[in-house]
Amino acid sequence: MKKLVAEFFGTWWLVLGGCGSAVLAAGYPELGIGFVGVSIAFGLTVLTMVYAIGHISGCHLNPAVTIGLWAGGRFDAKDIIPYIIAQLLGATAGAIIIYLIASGKAGFELGGFAANGYGEHSPDGYGLIAALICEVVMTFMFLMVILGATHSKAPKGFAGMAIGLALTLIHLISIPVTNTSVNPARSTSQAIFVGDWAMGQLWLFWVAPIAGAILAGIVYKYLSPEEEE
Amino acid sequence: MKKLVAEFFGTWWLVLGGCGSAVLAAGYPELGIGFVGVSIAFGLTVLTMVYAIGHISGCHLNPAVTIGLWAGGRFDAKDIIPYIIAQLLGATAGAIIIYLIASGKAGFELGGFAANGYGEHSPDGYGLIAALICEVVMTFMFLMVILGATHSKAPKGFAGMAIGLALTLIHLISIPVTNTSVNPARSTSQAIFVGDWAMGQLWLFWVAPIAGAILAGIVYKYLSPEEEE
Amino acid sequence: MKKLVAEFFGTWWLVLGGCGSAVLAAGYPELGIGFVGVSIAFGLTVLTMVYAIGHISGCHLNPAVTIGLWAGGRFDAKDIIPYIIAQLLGATAGAIIIYLIASGKAGFELGGFAANGYGEHSPDGYGLIAALICEVVMTFMFLMVILGATHSKAPKGFAGMAIGLALTLIHLISIPVTNTSVNPARSTSQAIFVGDWAMGQLWLFWVAPIAGAILAGIVYKYLSPEEEE
Amino acid sequence: MKKLVAEFFGTWWLVLGGCGSAVLAAGYPELGIGFVGVSIAFGLTVLTMVYAIGHISGCHLNPAVTIGLWAGGRFDAKDIIPYIIAQLLGATAGAIIIYLIASGKAGFELGGFAANGYGEHSPDGYGLIAALICEVVMTFMFLMVILGATHSKAPKGFAGMAIGLALTLIHLISIPVTNTSVNPARSTSQAIFVGDWAMGQLWLFWVAPIAGAILAGIVYKYLSPEEEE
Repeated sequence: MKKLVAEFFGTWWLVLGGCGSAVLAAGYPELGIGFVGVSIAFGLTVLTMVYAIGHISGCHLNPAVTIGLWAGGRFDAKDIIPYIIAQLLGATAGAIIIYLIASGKAGFELGGFAANGYGEHSPDGYGLIAALICEVVMTFMFLMVILGATHSKAPKGFAGMAIGLALTLIHLISIPVTNTSVNPARSTSQAIFVGDWAMGQLWLFWVAPIAGAILAGIVYKYLSPEEEE
Repeated sequence: MKKLVAEFFGTWWLVLGGCGSAVLAAGYPELGIGFVGVSIAFGLTVLTMVYAIGHISGCHLNPAVTIGLWAGGRFDAKDIIPYIIAQLLGATAGAIIIYLIASGKAGFELGGFAANGYGEHSPDGYGLIAALICEVVMTFMFLMVILGATHSKAPKGFAGMAIGLALTLIHLISIPVTNTSVNPARSTSQAIFVGDWAMGQLWLFWVAPIAGAILAGIVYKYLSPEEEE
Repeated sequence: MKKLVAEFFGTWWLVLGGCGSAVLAAGYPELGIGFVGVSIAFGLTVLTMVYAIGHISGCHLNPAVTIGLWAGGRFDAKDIIPYIIAQLLGATAGAIIIYLIASGKAGFELGGFAANGYGEHSPDGYGLIAALICEVVMTFMFLMVILGATHSKAPKGFAGMAIGLALTLIHLISIPVTNTSVNPARSTSQAIFVGDWAMGQLWLFWVAPIAGAILAGIVYKYLSPEEEE
Repeated sequence: MKKLVAEFFGTWWLVLGGCGSAVLAAGYPELGIGFVGVSIAFGLTVLTMVYAIGHISGCHLNPAVTIGLWAGGRFDAKDIIPYIIAQLLGATAGAIIIYLIASGKAGFELGGFAANGYGEHSPDGYGLIAALICEVVMTFMFLMVILGATHSKAPKGFAGMAIGLALTLIHLISIPVTNTSVNPARSTSQAIFVGDWAMGQLWLFWVAPIAGAILAGIVYKYLSPEEEE
């Protein structure tokens, strides 16, 4: 149960920090943080949480990570569903906090919140196929870093830094394409508020990240050296 | 006594680096550091000080941190008041240095300095409730990272990086809302110079951070695994 | 064989992350990541991969690195050619993914992709000699950091951070000069797509990085303290 | 002798990376790295060099650091002069490389290069007193971080990260004031090229950093806990 509470707060922080910085601070005139700031924010939610709760729950914060770790032989199938439920609840709670803060500004309009999309809802107008390739490949590499950096032969303690900064890197590349998901819980939390087109496009942000994650689990199993004792 | 001198210099650096970068460098035409730079600066004051004085005083630099650590069972009640006094003196000394430098520019006007505010004094016009929620939640998560990353089961040595970058993350999210406090000493040091509205709104930047910090102390006590010996 | 697959995916990620962020995100209006974001992205591809696959292949991702490590007495001559082939294949695969994503945007034009160049193809108009000096010196220092940070007397585990951030630093300095190569595989992958002038100038981005890398191997051999056992 | 060669290359890299990024990349239209990028670049020169040559020479790269470490009882007086000479030679060599690259652009004008200044030569017009206070205080805190993070009770291995990022922080605060020195070798290397006013104001960038460094040596001696064995 402690593990699930930890996943709840971790995913809450991921959405609140990542999507929150995008909604509240990215477009502030002249001084705003832009995509660089949002990319750093997403990465730091994960980096900080790995050190804060990694020793409690493993700090997945993402259904694709949970499933990818299972595919790579690192996570027990029976815990997948509870983890994903905790992540969805945490992500939604994060979105509620963003909404509460953002709506406290005069003239607030929800707009696209920080929802993910493709086609006319891609930030820079990328089509469905480009979005699909992008999300599969980005989640694939995210899981490769996670599986590699937590291997017993990797330097101890650095996994949190490498994994968090991998998420920063992924955002630096792909915000213009899909607003970057690689995380179905993050996407769902925003789509619930936006409804409409965001709910209609949400399937891609479950299918593509999970496909990329499973692929990484399979590839890393082949690449992986024997574990140290 | 050495501990209090260390807290003095650490909080001095936090205000000088964080508020100082905001006052001196954020709005420089074209090349200015913006909110991203200020966020990095705040985080790096804490990151650098944890490695420099963490082994002397624990490097709190913040009354909310001191109280949150006490609530989490990590700090002795009798040392709270001396720590807070050292932090207030250090923060004020930092503000004095900023003032001395900033006023050495022709045409200097104090303006809002780097004071925290809500309503019409929020950088982007967020109301009282939004500011209150924001400061409580941000300080809550700041203390969750501090309590988690310094737990005996967390990777050794990385706490300074995680805690410093947590403060960067918090600023990336919330500068537009309240100019980001999460630290009553930092807020007080600026309000003293601005006076007027900044003193009138200062209560929120004591109440909200301390409430968030105490809440984190309670929650983390529940989540926390047994300490390693 | 696992080593070569690891080099393939690593170099794939370097091109996809570094050149991909440049092509997709650098120039996005108002919120784009600019040269700072591209510099961070290049560095993080290497940082994340060192922790993910460093214990498999050593994580070179770059023919100049492979040759420089050989010159410094750290890598076996007979593995040079296979490593370089894996790197070229990985880099090209990375460029293909960028092309697939980028071409999914209405109105896409290839332009210069993220190719390296000098003279009229230098981003800021630097001539051949400046480009040559710049690439030699930057690769020289890149290899100095690699050779030093992986020495047995350097702090354990930090090499990935130092080496990745060295690549960030190199880009912060030299993107305006040559679009920054220091990596023949990265340059080749882009030149193949652009053809024409990019193929014509490609020689410099093989000659200069390799010359700088060999020089560093020689200098560091002199500087290097005895290895610890 | 190896130590002096290491200091030469390290200071070369500090000037080439820090001042070089300022001269070549800071003001590039739209995509330029600005003060944030220059601040990161300066910090990363030191961070990368600490891991690359820290185990050879201690990686001072700065006469004020060498003198501050002596004042703090960490460095032998007889090595001060050779270290400072190596640093000055390295810094000058770095400035020569920047000049060779920068002058390879059509229409190049030296302008202020990356020289430090006050009064009308301060980037944002700060007077002599402000510049003096700023340089003393910044170097004081730089040395406090160096002395603290390399203490035997500080976490092992992290000193390079803390010290490098302290230099980033210092630049985020103070570029508008003096263009940030805290390093007489760095200032001298630029003033030689600019001549004129830059040579006339150079005294401040020797006196203030060294004064701040000596002060830190004295204060940290008082604060410092007993060394571990």
